[in-house]
Amino acid sequence: MEHLQQSFTVQYNFNVFFTSSLFSVENDLFNNFLAGLNPAKAAKKIFFVLDEGVVNAHPDLKASIKNYFEKYNHTHLVSDFLVIPGGEVVKNETQYFDKVLEAVNTYGIDRHSFIAAIGGGAVLDMVGYAANVSHRGIKHIRIPTTVLSQNDSGVGVKNGINYFNKKNFLGTFSPPVAVFNDALFLRTLSDRDWRSGIAEAIKVALIKDREFFEWLEANAEAMANRNMEAMNYQIWKCAKLHMEHIRSGDPFESGSARPLDFGHWSAHKLEYLSNFEIRHGEAVAMGIALDTVYAQLSGRISEADAQRIIKLIQVLGFECTHPLLQVSNGDSPILQGLEEFREHLGGELTITLLTGIGSGEEVHEMDTALLKQAAETLNHQANLQSTNNCYGN
Amino acid sequence: MEHLQQSFTVQYNFNVFFTSSLFSVENDLFNNFLAGLNPAKAAKKIFFVLDEGVVNAHPDLKASIKNYFEKYNHTHLVSDFLVIPGGEVVKNETQYFDKVLEAVNTYGIDRHSFIAAIGGGAVLDMVGYAANVSHRGIKHIRIPTTVLSQNDSGVGVKNGINYFNKKNFLGTFSPPVAVFNDALFLRTLSDRDWRSGIAEAIKVALIKDREFFEWLEANAEAMANRNMEAMNYQIWKCAKLHMEHIRSGDPFESGSARPLDFGHWSAHKLEYLSNFEIRHGEAVAMGIALDTVYAQLSGRISEADAQRIIKLIQVLGFECTHPLLQVSNGDSPILQGLEEFREHLGGELTITLLTGIGSGEEVHEMDTALLKQAAETLNHQANLQSTNNCYGN
Repeated sequence: MEHLQQSFTVQYNFNVFFTSSLFSVENDLFNNFLAGLNPAKAAKKIFFVLDEGVVNAHPDLKASIKNYFEKYNHTHLVSDFLVIPGGEVVKNETQYFDKVLEAVNTYGIDRHSFIAAIGGGAVLDMVGYAANVSHRGIKHIRIPTTVLSQNDSGVGVKNGINYFNKKNFLGTFSPPVAVFNDALFLRTLSDRDWRSGIAEAIKVALIKDREFFEWLEANAEAMANRNMEAMNYQIWKCAKLHMEHIRSGDPFESGSARPLDFGHWSAHKLEYLSNFEIRHGEAVAMGIALDTVYAQLSGRISEADAQRIIKLIQVLGFECTHPLLQVSNGDSPILQGLEEFREHLGGELTITLLTGIGSGEEVHEMDTALLKQAAETLNHQANLQSTNNCYGN
Repeated sequence: MEHLQQSFTVQYNFNVFFTSSLFSVENDLFNNFLAGLNPAKAAKKIFFVLDEGVVNAHPDLKASIKNYFEKYNHTHLVSDFLVIPGGEVVKNETQYFDKVLEAVNTYGIDRHSFIAAIGGGAVLDMVGYAANVSHRGIKHIRIPTTVLSQNDSGVGVKNGINYFNKKNFLGTFSPPVAVFNDALFLRTLSDRDWRSGIAEAIKVALIKDREFFEWLEANAEAMANRNMEAMNYQIWKCAKLHMEHIRSGDPFESGSARPLDFGHWSAHKLEYLSNFEIRHGEAVAMGIALDTVYAQLSGRISEADAQRIIKLIQVLGFECTHPLLQVSNGDSPILQGLEEFREHLGGELTITLLTGIGSGEEVHEMDTALLKQAAETLNHQANLQSTNNCYGN
């Protein structure tokens, strides 16, 4: 019998809003969004999952949310909040994923209701995954609270948890229904968290936008000194570049190309090897430095450009290498990261290397000897500047 | 700052192939499909998950597959097979889901490799879910072996497992990359499994295609007597109608309308209440009968049409009601099924009721007294024909 052909498209739309004090009762942005999505016929619920670190830094957060939904009661607030730790532990331990599923069941959160997550990227990743697989997809709202989640992961379409000690082994592609970037949450970040997310801006500028790289150079000291205006623009621009890439490319990554993972193959492994003591952005900064020197050693970029990139990383306050990134003659754990990256991508290894500031190319293998040399070069440079890091200025 | 708008579409394509003896070395259909998807650059793997019931009925299946991939070795066959029980148990117990994840990890199945599931609908649902969440989506191939999975669930875009004792509490919308309907597997089905899936053809004919309903009436006895030609056409036509509905409607069910779930609200609950001793198709036949009599009692269809429908159900050999479907004056478990259906749909209860043979309408509530009367009417009719069922002829 004749075969049957199935073919259809699915449209995905969402907005990323920028605001400050999202749950101030004077701010009707969040309510306007909910009311717009929410036809009068059915009673919808909204359930909040909160990052413990955010709750500690903003002790009035729960009260503000309750107060907000007393004024704007079009959507029914589930009055219990789920508070979970921030950071990679929520992706490593399935108990937190289970807690979200239990809440969906206990509070009867249906597919037209909302789960809103307020927190860093790890919390958003885990909650997004739990929401996406519950009832085959509860609407999820992301309220990222770190630089990294506001300028990168929170505005993307991926979520997931770690399993078998592998990052994002489980996950889905599923866009949120909205993202709310609230600048208020940035004020209480530690210097490490404030700085960390800027690595993703360096990354996206290096592969896509020379002008933005130059803006980052010009504003690096201001950002290092916690200038909020510079930080807000950096987040907005970096989010915009990430979103344009997703839209114009291969949103659900059916191919092997992953330019936005520039600098990430070693960063992912380094996070694991350091037991997540190294933050994602910190690891990405080191990963960018490693692949930058590799690009220089392999003749893709000039030494001057490589030095500009390393300098920007240093001015922002990042370390640019780590003992765990060194390649010894025997088995180096960091080299396993290459194989795991290939496996996670599927099929072919695809790494983006710079061909200049603002442009990259895809390569399908990395030369171990050159990698070793790149790591040693950075290590040497770091040792010259400090006994244990490469802080510049 | 100005908000950022994200908007993109994702295209989904797959074919449903009809064949016999898929893994006969003379049959190059499967290999042609794999070779077409598989660029030469990367070594792809294929891993098979097999339904134990199918392996028992086809003891040479593993050898045939190995033999097939010795001849057609473009894709690398993982030589170990995962054999799991068929039926709802694989969706109820997470150990089977875990076994698929472990295989993905052990054998290094990446996102461009394949997981093929051979089995009934429950096996396909579970394996599809595991494949979809592993590495954010390994390509999955469905090889349905029952009438129900060949004409309905296997050609759709949903997968999932049960959790918290709720059907498909966890799952995703994720189309397979291909479906292979192999008529060979139908020959070894028990009479119950042979019959069971025809309920979905009655369902889709009743809401969409009067002419197909008349074909089912004309061929009911032939199918009851295991005529393969009639069965093959029924499967092809039913699959086609399901696929057209998915394509033209709301593939990932962002709204509340679910016409393909006609007759299913009570069926889902009945399966659970009977501890899955009642097969899905058997429950759907009873669910159709219940909603048919309800449609008659509420003045939507004529008594003559209702009788035609009940007769078709009977001629095919189905029972058309069950003691667990009766509505008593107190709490009836079956009524909880309505609430659970609403919750799973999200938001508003939406039930399709017939307005004629081949057409339906959506309603948003069901009258308990009429439901009770409909259940009693069927029960009475069943008691007239048999002491414990409503078998006709």
